[in-house]
Amino acid sequence: MNEFELIARLTRSLPRNESVLVGAGDDCAVLEVGVPDRLLLFKTDAIVEGIHYKNDAPPEKVGRKALARTLSDIAAMGGTPIAALITLGLPRQFEPEFIEQIYAGMNALAQRHAIAIVGGETTTNPERVFISVSLLGFVPRGKALLRSGAKAGDAIFVTGELGGSLAGRHLDFEPRLAEARWLADNFSIHAMMDISDGLAGDLRHLLKASGVGAELLKSAVPISRAAITAAKAGDAAKPAFVAALTDGEDFELLFTVASKDAVPLLDAWKGKFSGLRLTCIGKIVRGEGITLRDKNGAQPLTAHGYVHFS
Amino acid sequence: MNEFELIARLTRSLPRNESVLVGAGDDCAVLEVGVPDRLLLFKTDAIVEGIHYKNDAPPEKVGRKALARTLSDIAAMGGTPIAALITLGLPRQFEPEFIEQIYAGMNALAQRHAIAIVGGETTTNPERVFISVSLLGFVPRGKALLRSGAKAGDAIFVTGELGGSLAGRHLDFEPRLAEARWLADNFSIHAMMDISDGLAGDLRHLLKASGVGAELLKSAVPISRAAITAAKAGDAAKPAFVAALTDGEDFELLFTVASKDAVPLLDAWKGKFSGLRLTCIGKIVRGEGITLRDKNGAQPLTAHGYVHFS
Repeated sequence: MNEFELIARLTRSLPRNESVLVGAGDDCAVLEVGVPDRLLLFKTDAIVEGIHYKNDAPPEKVGRKALARTLSDIAAMGGTPIAALITLGLPRQFEPEFIEQIYAGMNALAQRHAIAIVGGETTTNPERVFISVSLLGFVPRGKALLRSGAKAGDAIFVTGELGGSLAGRHLDFEPRLAEARWLADNFSIHAMMDISDGLAGDLRHLLKASGVGAELLKSAVPISRAAITAAKAGDAAKPAFVAALTDGEDFELLFTVASKDAVPLLDAWKGKFSGLRLTCIGKIVRGEGITLRDKNGAQPLTAHGYVHFS
Repeated sequence: MNEFELIARLTRSLPRNESVLVGAGDDCAVLEVGVPDRLLLFKTDAIVEGIHYKNDAPPEKVGRKALARTLSDIAAMGGTPIAALITLGLPRQFEPEFIEQIYAGMNALAQRHAIAIVGGETTTNPERVFISVSLLGFVPRGKALLRSGAKAGDAIFVTGELGGSLAGRHLDFEPRLAEARWLADNFSIHAMMDISDGLAGDLRHLLKASGVGAELLKSAVPISRAAITAAKAGDAAKPAFVAALTDGEDFELLFTVASKDAVPLLDAWKGKFSGLRLTCIGKIVRGEGITLRDKNGAQPLTAHGYVHFS
């Protein structure tokens, strides 16, 4: 049983109440809490030393990453983050300066997005640092961007470039908050999520949630320079295209719009976010799964994204 | 530097915004989110295998405890819990049944309090189970019970009996949600918190937040049967009274009211919660710190509650 199978099994029996509009299974939970014009977004995400970052990573960047991951989830709903709580599991022997640097990285990113850090706790995790961030945000009522709205015929877009994030970008990525809010405000986005486990795996989640399939154009997938460099490192390395599909930790936006909106959206994007690539990588089709089209024709894609515990 | 010194140092520089009414330092954060009649409560709490429970503890009880701890914090504000997210750090090899049992314990407690579990995540923590629960709740506007409201002359109350919780009760305790809401609805509670690190240590936090001191009547402190039994175990054991002051994991309510309300409150309590002891253990005084009064007179209390990392 891998991570996703276990989650599916657990999710079926979770208790709900009348506040829950979207529970487990999207980038954030969406809650009705009685605010006239807005819904509440609620998300938690953890990073663990030696799993999500190497133990020689600068602590400021580790703290920054812990918060940035949850911001990417709020972005993926078209939301605005408001307040965070920090849970820090620490070995018994620790340097206070190390913890202060973790917080310095989080605080700087929080301040830039006007997010309050309203507490949390420190506890003991003897063997390694464990950082869990819990985040609240808001989204205008009726504007939450879910994974489940993709329709056959939609154009599929990704921001940025994919693959090779673990070479460094995973400690420095910019959560796409402004971009996602602009998309939600100006276009009818059918489905959106952030890419955290690799395009192939995450797109599959979006397709499954929407009950559709996708056809990707191989030559269109934007591959990062880091993935290309890594692919040249030796015979054992992943081909760059496979890295772009499966590496994970990209934290870019993946979304779909009606095909008629694709060109106007691209044009408007270039005027607004000229420093960030936006690429149409294919289209939503009836059926299920991912088909990859290249000069030799179309064939099913079997490569999966990164799966914990598999 | 111990846990509390580190927290104080970190808390000073946390970013805030206009939503924050109460940030780090109380049982929960209190947020203004635009709900007409209510404020939002936000809390996170973690338990770690081998630190907060033994690795042979039944997984249902471990899951129950993880959620119950955060419920106790919502109770301590006079609030009502709404929705939770669960972060589960797991060794790479795990039995799905083990995880399902953890969730079964959480789900049952959540259902009893009409709390939705709206997602979370599983991640890898190679050496031990790490469970972090993030919880949202509401409190009526103007009714949040803080640590900072105690006044000289107040009577100090505790629910239940203290000490010896690790012998078993820490896996079965009932968060005092109904009791705390009843107190908030029916009396002018000046200050309240839950006892998680031991009466002596936690009362000190309340006193410091309120800028006052306390005089405790030694004979009044309610000592649990478990603490008394443990004290008889051998010469090396803690005296039962010291256990009641310092053991931690009691998850009872500690609160203060004006002295004129003390007797009416006790009378009304007996009619409403006849199964749960409520004890006046002393009074709030000017000054700082805790004085302990017994038949030999009054002297400063120097025993501290349990402190991580000390």
